[in-house]
Amino acid sequence: MMYEVKVYVTLKEGVLDPQGSAVKNSLHHLGYEGVEEVRIGKVMTLRIEAEKDTVDAQVKEMCDKLLANPVIEDYTYETEEVVSS
Amino acid sequence: MMYEVKVYVTLKEGVLDPQGSAVKNSLHHLGYEGVEEVRIGKVMTLRIEAEKDTVDAQVKEMCDKLLANPVIEDYTYETEEVVSS
Repeated sequence: MMYEVKVYVTLKEGVLDPQGSAVKNSLHHLGYEGVEEVRIGKVMTLRIEAEKDTVDAQVKEMCDKLLANPVIEDYTYETEEVVSS
Repeated sequence: MMYEVKVYVTLKEGVLDPQGSAVKNSLHHLGYEGVEEVRIGKVMTLRIEAEKDTVDAQVKEMCDKLLANPVIEDYTYETEEVVSS
């Protein structure tokens, strides 16, 4: 089966996000004074050929080993079967 | 009102994603041969103090002006009211 997996990797609360702060300052300069916080993370879209009962475990392993840094980042993911037409 | 807005910025189809290719190769080296494609984008979480009827228009403007590069990137966003407790 083919699966499309979206992995969202975000900084843990309390971890400084200088990139987010820079974007917030830029937004203020553009006049969007109402922006109080910006946090920036990653979204990774993977297409994986795998068995239904192993895909979740595989994605979790990939996140723990490579896609996220568990010291400073959290991750979540959504798995969806790709229906070929 | 306080809003939490999640902005997802992804590369348009057809735009090369060298970072995604590198991650795909690393996953293959780790033994995940079933991974056929990896595309990497950004997720930005904004907290915005704004009126209900202007927040959507503001976010769209921010994306067009700063958060996304409309030549090579697409964006979507979700807006949610933050209920203070």
